[in-house]
Amino acid sequence: MDLEYLGLDDFLLAALREDIGAGDITTNCCISESAVSTGAFIAKEPGVVCGLHVAARVFALLDRDIRLTPRLNDGDITKAGDVLADITGPSRGILTGERTALNLFQRMSGIATRTAEAVTAVSGTKTRIVDTRKTTPGLRVLEKYAVRCGGGSNHRFNLADGILIKDNHIVAAGGISAAISLARSACPHTLKIEIEAETLAQVEEALGAGADIIMFDNMPLDTMSEAVKIINRRALTEASGNMGERDLRAVAETGVDFISIGALTHSVKALDISLRFK
Amino acid sequence: MDLEYLGLDDFLLAALREDIGAGDITTNCCISESAVSTGAFIAKEPGVVCGLHVAARVFALLDRDIRLTPRLNDGDITKAGDVLADITGPSRGILTGERTALNLFQRMSGIATRTAEAVTAVSGTKTRIVDTRKTTPGLRVLEKYAVRCGGGSNHRFNLADGILIKDNHIVAAGGISAAISLARSACPHTLKIEIEAETLAQVEEALGAGADIIMFDNMPLDTMSEAVKIINRRALTEASGNMGERDLRAVAETGVDFISIGALTHSVKALDISLRFK
Amino acid sequence: MDLEYLGLDDFLLAALREDIGAGDITTNCCISESAVSTGAFIAKEPGVVCGLHVAARVFALLDRDIRLTPRLNDGDITKAGDVLADITGPSRGILTGERTALNLFQRMSGIATRTAEAVTAVSGTKTRIVDTRKTTPGLRVLEKYAVRCGGGSNHRFNLADGILIKDNHIVAAGGISAAISLARSACPHTLKIEIEAETLAQVEEALGAGADIIMFDNMPLDTMSEAVKIINRRALTEASGNMGERDLRAVAETGVDFISIGALTHSVKALDISLRFK
Amino acid sequence: MDLEYLGLDDFLLAALREDIGAGDITTNCCISESAVSTGAFIAKEPGVVCGLHVAARVFALLDRDIRLTPRLNDGDITKAGDVLADITGPSRGILTGERTALNLFQRMSGIATRTAEAVTAVSGTKTRIVDTRKTTPGLRVLEKYAVRCGGGSNHRFNLADGILIKDNHIVAAGGISAAISLARSACPHTLKIEIEAETLAQVEEALGAGADIIMFDNMPLDTMSEAVKIINRRALTEASGNMGERDLRAVAETGVDFISIGALTHSVKALDISLRFK
Amino acid sequence: MDLEYLGLDDFLLAALREDIGAGDITTNCCISESAVSTGAFIAKEPGVVCGLHVAARVFALLDRDIRLTPRLNDGDITKAGDVLADITGPSRGILTGERTALNLFQRMSGIATRTAEAVTAVSGTKTRIVDTRKTTPGLRVLEKYAVRCGGGSNHRFNLADGILIKDNHIVAAGGISAAISLARSACPHTLKIEIEAETLAQVEEALGAGADIIMFDNMPLDTMSEAVKIINRRALTEASGNMGERDLRAVAETGVDFISIGALTHSVKALDISLRFK
Amino acid sequence: MDLEYLGLDDFLLAALREDIGAGDITTNCCISESAVSTGAFIAKEPGVVCGLHVAARVFALLDRDIRLTPRLNDGDITKAGDVLADITGPSRGILTGERTALNLFQRMSGIATRTAEAVTAVSGTKTRIVDTRKTTPGLRVLEKYAVRCGGGSNHRFNLADGILIKDNHIVAAGGISAAISLARSACPHTLKIEIEAETLAQVEEALGAGADIIMFDNMPLDTMSEAVKIINRRALTEASGNMGERDLRAVAETGVDFISIGALTHSVKALDISLRFK
Repeated sequence: MDLEYLGLDDFLLAALREDIGAGDITTNCCISESAVSTGAFIAKEPGVVCGLHVAARVFALLDRDIRLTPRLNDGDITKAGDVLADITGPSRGILTGERTALNLFQRMSGIATRTAEAVTAVSGTKTRIVDTRKTTPGLRVLEKYAVRCGGGSNHRFNLADGILIKDNHIVAAGGISAAISLARSACPHTLKIEIEAETLAQVEEALGAGADIIMFDNMPLDTMSEAVKIINRRALTEASGNMGERDLRAVAETGVDFISIGALTHSVKALDISLRFK
Repeated sequence: MDLEYLGLDDFLLAALREDIGAGDITTNCCISESAVSTGAFIAKEPGVVCGLHVAARVFALLDRDIRLTPRLNDGDITKAGDVLADITGPSRGILTGERTALNLFQRMSGIATRTAEAVTAVSGTKTRIVDTRKTTPGLRVLEKYAVRCGGGSNHRFNLADGILIKDNHIVAAGGISAAISLARSACPHTLKIEIEAETLAQVEEALGAGADIIMFDNMPLDTMSEAVKIINRRALTEASGNMGERDLRAVAETGVDFISIGALTHSVKALDISLRFK
Repeated sequence: MDLEYLGLDDFLLAALREDIGAGDITTNCCISESAVSTGAFIAKEPGVVCGLHVAARVFALLDRDIRLTPRLNDGDITKAGDVLADITGPSRGILTGERTALNLFQRMSGIATRTAEAVTAVSGTKTRIVDTRKTTPGLRVLEKYAVRCGGGSNHRFNLADGILIKDNHIVAAGGISAAISLARSACPHTLKIEIEAETLAQVEEALGAGADIIMFDNMPLDTMSEAVKIINRRALTEASGNMGERDLRAVAETGVDFISIGALTHSVKALDISLRFK
Repeated sequence: MDLEYLGLDDFLLAALREDIGAGDITTNCCISESAVSTGAFIAKEPGVVCGLHVAARVFALLDRDIRLTPRLNDGDITKAGDVLADITGPSRGILTGERTALNLFQRMSGIATRTAEAVTAVSGTKTRIVDTRKTTPGLRVLEKYAVRCGGGSNHRFNLADGILIKDNHIVAAGGISAAISLARSACPHTLKIEIEAETLAQVEEALGAGADIIMFDNMPLDTMSEAVKIINRRALTEASGNMGERDLRAVAETGVDFISIGALTHSVKALDISLRFK
Repeated sequence: MDLEYLGLDDFLLAALREDIGAGDITTNCCISESAVSTGAFIAKEPGVVCGLHVAARVFALLDRDIRLTPRLNDGDITKAGDVLADITGPSRGILTGERTALNLFQRMSGIATRTAEAVTAVSGTKTRIVDTRKTTPGLRVLEKYAVRCGGGSNHRFNLADGILIKDNHIVAAGGISAAISLARSACPHTLKIEIEAETLAQVEEALGAGADIIMFDNMPLDTMSEAVKIINRRALTEASGNMGERDLRAVAETGVDFISIGALTHSVKALDISLRFK
Repeated sequence: MDLEYLGLDDFLLAALREDIGAGDITTNCCISESAVSTGAFIAKEPGVVCGLHVAARVFALLDRDIRLTPRLNDGDITKAGDVLADITGPSRGILTGERTALNLFQRMSGIATRTAEAVTAVSGTKTRIVDTRKTTPGLRVLEKYAVRCGGGSNHRFNLADGILIKDNHIVAAGGISAAISLARSACPHTLKIEIEAETLAQVEEALGAGADIIMFDNMPLDTMSEAVKIINRRALTEASGNMGERDLRAVAETGVDFISIGALTHSVKALDISLRFK
């Protein structure tokens, strides 16, 4: 469940520059350069922890003498009051980095927590919870990692690593069959072709045109069940469309392979975590 | 209520590169280079609109022949079903930019909507709703603009433009009076000094040490009322601490000048907006 | 056959800075700021033209009063002596940009030319010529575009948009079946799984493990024919391994779906093109 | 023969990002984070090795626990089958960096190999082989280093570090004498003035105008010999123009000081090198 | 008096690239890669030293085996002939970095020296010497640090961390009272409001409108004294306007709180420092 | 005398970001978005103007509706009170850009003014005034342009475009003859070789070793005259070493070809220029 992200340092430095501006005037005025502090990151509510190493890296970029020691791993469950990590080192760097570290740690833990709730909702079925491209600009790698930490799977990372023909594409391309045929002839042979369908007729057309994956967009439960039966494993199936507000178990019980939920990343409630000095 | 942001284009180009990766393979395979489309951005739920010009700029960066024509202004109220803007131009650019534009437009509108709810909750009092530094890394300028569009005011933009001595600073500096005294002697004379207080004794100490602004952190309502009376306009007052889950009207009625709410930006529910081709 | 590349300007500006350094001292000393020139880009040998719009953009970045007017389109065939484009505008900008423009134009045309030769070699068969990731660092988008202009197709753009399990992966993962099984359980459902095989036994194992695409690496022709028969359309097939020095028609006649050729981009002979002032 | 290049890390990180995209999905799915591998880089054909430290740096940027141990130095001759370097460390980093490292290593070795062939062709004469500005955009420092490793010398690095008045400059400046005179009066006194000449009359004019270096562009052998005699060491001499396809020894025997060859860098055949896991 | 500057390395790398260009050809040609040198930085005139750690960092970025050992601290006074620091390590890196290091070290020491002269001029009064935004583009953080090392204080770092209503703002806003009123209603509550006044009438208007700080712009000494009396500590006071050429003690004796001097940073005389090899 | 600088926009945007930070809070609070202003740039002291187009570009980057109309050209002489340029357009952009524009305009004019003084001091002799690499990091292109505008010539732009063997190189290389010999054998043939000499013996050694240019470092006038005679035009000659404080005419009368003056750029007095709104 580790995170490998070649651009992480650049991202974190940019985040620190945004938050620090011309300098942390409060810390530099009030705290001596030689002061050393010890503190703890504490969960104020239950959830799934994510972003421990990202938070650690924020502090390391400010001062390599700061040591953040996790007590849990990304993906672990925490309850209110748990100490998630200890921190010790030069006070200035800890105080200057606190907000940037928490902004990411709380957001990533919030995503992991919500994902875990969705995964739990469908447990026992064979349906997998997947994310979408409805992520925060600049944070996609971190947010999709948080989804994995919550037990979910990733859909496409970007527009280059999957064919997904949506409603507006179908309009512009002149129909489902036309769109699939165009995609088949031009796309790299390593990609599957996924297409959106809203009705059973569209499902049949997509299937006939050779779609590898069919996405049911905003479909009622009974239509979805019917669609799964029609497809009969000749294509993968994915339920989509405001899934953040649907009964996920009911959706899973239609037999779809995947449920994709934009709200996992577009409507995040930060997990409440605080840093306390001793 | 306009947004001036020198780095906007760089931010949006980075967002587009993150979402496009090596190329929008679906659009490039399925849609002819010469195709032209017309569509509309439609609100699927009520709220306050924010980000219209940001969305327009996303498309302009992809293809300057795309025209996004707003029907409202940032800060306006919308109801479900309203057309927020019309769009017309080369189909490829519209399809490729759709997700990036919506990711920002929906998020900014979500922040403006939540801010407007908070502002409404305290309307009639003299208390102002302000934001915090609990913003998404990379998006601070946009998120603080959205708070203004929702009727809120901005607190500090970064660590350089205000002295705010928080609990951990007080611990590391050796107390409230020491911290204020250090700040006074070293900080630029253009900045006010704000300090956090959790008890009435701390309020008295901060006042005696000459704080310009006193922040009440997680204080019960009756203590807060008492604190406002003690201060008696000798310093500005600010209520803080999980204000996203407090009764804002009751807090305002203690007489505090400002209520700062981290949840305005750290726990955003995206406003549901979609783009429909005609 | 057009090129859409969001980062093109940044790439070209970097290329210009590399070539110009602190300033084009020859041009600035010898040529008056107000001088205007007219010239032509001329092919000195036959081939397929590619990079006309890239060259035009180089000059536009230096001086928007320079007009480069193509007489052909990317992908067109030229013979020695043909005028490929006319150019007119401020002499300084043309002279300063000449080398950078030609370095790209000649290289891209060289790739398109070599690709077209490969495509011609297999014409009449159903086999498609595809490229690899053996491109020049920094130029992948341009080089893969040149392959398309020469009539070839693109394989993966990068490591994120396709599963391709190669010999060293198989060693490290503990075998073909193990590797495919691991990939299947963890990769996004939008991607196909391709695996390298060197023997018929490996082909059988890959097929049994459910590979979507099987790559024949450095396989003799008769083994390859046998492999195609064994697979019998249950997976796509790709021939690979020093294909730049093999008899492509003979390879195609084994019935493979794709031939991937690293030499298309790693061993390019620039097409000879020159700019002549009138 | 070492390489000092302040921007190397930035260049390599950009190359890695281009090749990795959103993540090396194959490696991350199939190979455990704790796996360790050992392998060897093996020459598949004879040539001159170049880029060993560049390759080593690619892996170090991905994972500092990877050790690449060269068995040769840049500039050394290899034969087919030789082990050029050993590598050991975390499997994931080695697999993810392999292609980027090889793309550079093979290209640089290809340039060094071709340069060495040219140097050998003129051995025993006093003529030196030099490169040109016909390099790949973004790779000039690496490619000119490879030329040095092959025994060649470098011509100008960019347009700022030498005056070279070419045919189109002469047209735009109004003649050879005018151009040299303008250059002399305005250029920094640290630079020599080089000018292109195609005929003996032009050679005489350049000499009379005080050129420091005269370049013979596409000149027949006997004219070149005559030109060298006329100049009689009053200026340096350089032969140029499709030298990649000329008889270099014959050119050298005219007595020219330098032969500049664009093909050293614009028409590179990558040296065949592979990485094999044990 | 230490410097914390998150972007320092990027700034120094850019400075090195500007000075090195395509490579330090003199050093690389004349000095062996294995050569090691020892030298000393010596003050050639008296002054206040500033930039020792910046200089050290320049060399560390070029070669981490170079050791620069300061004999003084930033802010210390030096006399002509003093050794400021010793340096030892690979000769190439020292020679290549010398100019960039000295360009910064000499400039920063020049600023600290001039600031110290101004501070000395007002010693014994309660007036503080402050800088302005008249800094060199790109060097603001370093130049404002040098002012602190010379004993001065910093005014605003940028346009975001203080309200300062200048003459042209007053013209455009329609007067002093209007401008202050607009600022009060819209600016973050953490900022003080400063305004420029040229006459006593303007001072009275600014005071009446609630200005926190009043800047006397180009005011004669007796008017300034009068203004200080009128204000009578109800606002902070700042003298400004060509203060680099005024009698600072006389200005201080009017009782102003601050004297801001643009010349501290816009008209710097570099302190003469040289590096001598032993 | 125009300036061509491919990176100018990036440099100016960075300068604006440094000065604007999170936003020009004064202007945005006090000035309406629709306000329009007219003003003039006025010289407050006599000098040589430089940077008019740079200033214009600063404003254009902020708002393309701002028009800055120069009344003079770069390199022209101004007297106190002259209007240098008119400006008109949206008030916000003018106010926000004023400081950045003036910081550059005043500095560049200060350099041009001081250079013109030096050029005047040696007028009538054949000696040329040249600059050095003692420029402000990040501003070299602009500062060397200002030197040209003041009538001076440029020395090397960076370490790649000239061989200059200085005292420390001589120490590290083991003497003058050794250093010149090493440079000759390894440097590109397009560069001249310059070397520093402090005594007549060193001058003789440099001449014997074939130096193209000999720099007299901190040499007394009579020694310098003697050196010029000894050299007798067999090499170019350059006087150097605290020339900012020497009698330039006396130096020129020794017959040296060039006088290089670091103080032109390292000890700049900004020309006093102000912007006044009407």
